Amino acid sequence: MKDGQLLIFDGAAKPLRLVRMEVPKLNPAEILVKNTYTTLCGSDLHTFCGKRNEKTPTVLGHEIVGIISEIGESHSHLDFNGEALKVGDRVTWAVFVAPPQEIWINKGMPQKSDHLFKYGHAQIKGDDVFHGGLGDFTVLKEHTAIFKLPENLPTAIAATINCAVATVAGAMRLAGSVKGKTVLVTGMGLLGNLAVAMAKVQGAKEIIAVDITEAKLEQAKRFGAMHTYLIDHIKADHKVDVALEMSGAPEAAELGLEMLCIGGIAVWVGAVFKTRKIEIDAEQVIRNIITIKGLHNYNFEDLRYALKFMTDHHQDFPFDEMIEKEFPLAEATKAFEYALQHKPLRVGIYIDELK
Amino acid sequence: MKDGQLLIFDGAAKPLRLVRMEVPKLNPAEILVKNTYTTLCGSDLHTFCGKRNEKTPTVLGHEIVGIISEIGESHSHLDFNGEALKVGDRVTWAVFVAPPQEIWINKGMPQKSDHLFKYGHAQIKGDDVFHGGLGDFTVLKEHTAIFKLPENLPTAIAATINCAVATVAGAMRLAGSVKGKTVLVTGMGLLGNLAVAMAKVQGAKEIIAVDITEAKLEQAKRFGAMHTYLIDHIKADHKVDVALEMSGAPEAAELGLEMLCIGGIAVWVGAVFKTRKIEIDAEQVIRNIITIKGLHNYNFEDLRYALKFMTDHHQDFPFDEMIEKEFPLAEATKAFEYALQHKPLRVGIYIDELK
Repeated sequence: MKDGQLLIFDGAAKPLRLVRMEVPKLNPAEILVKNTYTTLCGSDLHTFCGKRNEKTPTVLGHEIVGIISEIGESHSHLDFNGEALKVGDRVTWAVFVAPPQEIWINKGMPQKSDHLFKYGHAQIKGDDVFHGGLGDFTVLKEHTAIFKLPENLPTAIAATINCAVATVAGAMRLAGSVKGKTVLVTGMGLLGNLAVAMAKVQGAKEIIAVDITEAKLEQAKRFGAMHTYLIDHIKADHKVDVALEMSGAPEAAELGLEMLCIGGIAVWVGAVFKTRKIEIDAEQVIRNIITIKGLHNYNFEDLRYALKFMTDHHQDFPFDEMIEKEFPLAEATKAFEYALQHKPLRVGIYIDELK
Repeated sequence: MKDGQLLIFDGAAKPLRLVRMEVPKLNPAEILVKNTYTTLCGSDLHTFCGKRNEKTPTVLGHEIVGIISEIGESHSHLDFNGEALKVGDRVTWAVFVAPPQEIWINKGMPQKSDHLFKYGHAQIKGDDVFHGGLGDFTVLKEHTAIFKLPENLPTAIAATINCAVATVAGAMRLAGSVKGKTVLVTGMGLLGNLAVAMAKVQGAKEIIAVDITEAKLEQAKRFGAMHTYLIDHIKADHKVDVALEMSGAPEAAELGLEMLCIGGIAVWVGAVFKTRKIEIDAEQVIRNIITIKGLHNYNFEDLRYALKFMTDHHQDFPFDEMIEKEFPLAEATKAFEYALQHKPLRVGIYIDELK
């Protein structure tokens, strides 16, 4: 029997609790992964500080990369792309898993399936504990969409693919082709910079980045933003075809709608927490034939695109700026505090080999 | 030289002014139509009572049916469906016309073309006066999408095709397939009842109609609504796949969004006038992956569908209830007053043969 370390989250304002537990016997369709690196996503930070609620106790961290340690005997031994999987392969996987359900697959929204399980979000029940990135292992449940990672992908980048990158891939899918178009991106955290980078690769004519700090705008330029504005300094008469809202700020969503040209489309991603209501001029939405689409998480095609995008383009953008600081697993509480204070694109948690 | 009567609108709170003017010589690509019947659309009423502003003087009325009186020598003599046009044919036509522009055609939004001219809305300039339904003639400008009407279509129904019916056809296009779905329609004026009828023909599983008066709800049942509610009596936990907003009331738009299930879509059509802002919970739009689409007017395919729908299905629904009262052209001011007071689906204006 293996055992491994875990950091248990018991609720906001409580320090993470380091425990050592036995890894339960694998079900035949499961895969055991030795986690190697986890990046803290904005939603981890929101849960940690109490801005959002998850059922506790839980193990946080869902932007994970790891190495296959064991494969259940009835598993297909194939990843989502049909590539062979073996012990020792480096992988990432969809943050959500559910029994395949035709209705949600047909809607292109497997992330909204019934009986959904989410890595890094689920409550600990019995010995079902190894399902977050802040621990030595993840047990990948049956039906998990797993992706084998190419060797050239740096670990920290690989970790962000199954949340930040895939979500932005989904937002770009909802926005439709941006080729030759003017794209506004509000909120220059990791999602915003990824949106800028994808818009650039996809051939956008103009990319405008908006944030509330100059430093983030400078960084956005390095990811491909052609024009940058502090939110209070931009004029809504600068018209855009596509407005990608990554900040969660109501003012940013409203700015995006005001800036849309006739036939424009807004995609809202950022506000996965309570905010004041967005105030919309229905007449403008109608007369300008505007579309607004919300997106939460992503589907499997988005995750596939995210992996391909980062495989092909991670060297075209300054992703070396992404991780401002790294912490060992045992110091993850400090990592959260650092992230909340300094707001870097990401902090990284490295998870040592088992001793 | 022909001459004809016209009712000129000089601004809200001023009675319509009956004049007789000479019909100018037709340009070679134009067609002259003798108007026979015009229905008053909600936007005509809004303009008449000052709720919306049009440049004056103008000739109101754009839901028009008429008979071809003269065809310019360079006109193709074909309608939008490629059918031959000749003097004496009964026709309707798109309310808007512009030189064909690739960018707007590619967007599927010819109604937003540059240099757009709108029948029943345009300011009178020089001898360019015969462009509204409240007159004996309409001069159909070059590039107007004209549709020859089948003989079996009653005149009043034919009049509504180029605005009410085509707009609802556009809303259904934006909503996507409603087959097997639950559809909410808010606002049971003519657009709302047409939406109910189209949803029924397209195979919706459940159709819910919402209004502020019981009489409108009773009428909606006759058009196919399966469940009807006064807006204050419906519970938002009754989930719907599609919410079609035809009333323009902010409360109705908000109700529709609240009622949408995951992956649901709202189409806003009604609010073509100033209202208070719609208040939207961005987190709900995001987590439920909701889409909101505004629609103003329609494109040519919508108009084609509208004509086919009414040709095939006008006898399946109680369109004999649509016109509550008819007035001769000279009494159109009374028609506006009646419509504003009694809020029927439509009032009709019949335009006599020339004397």
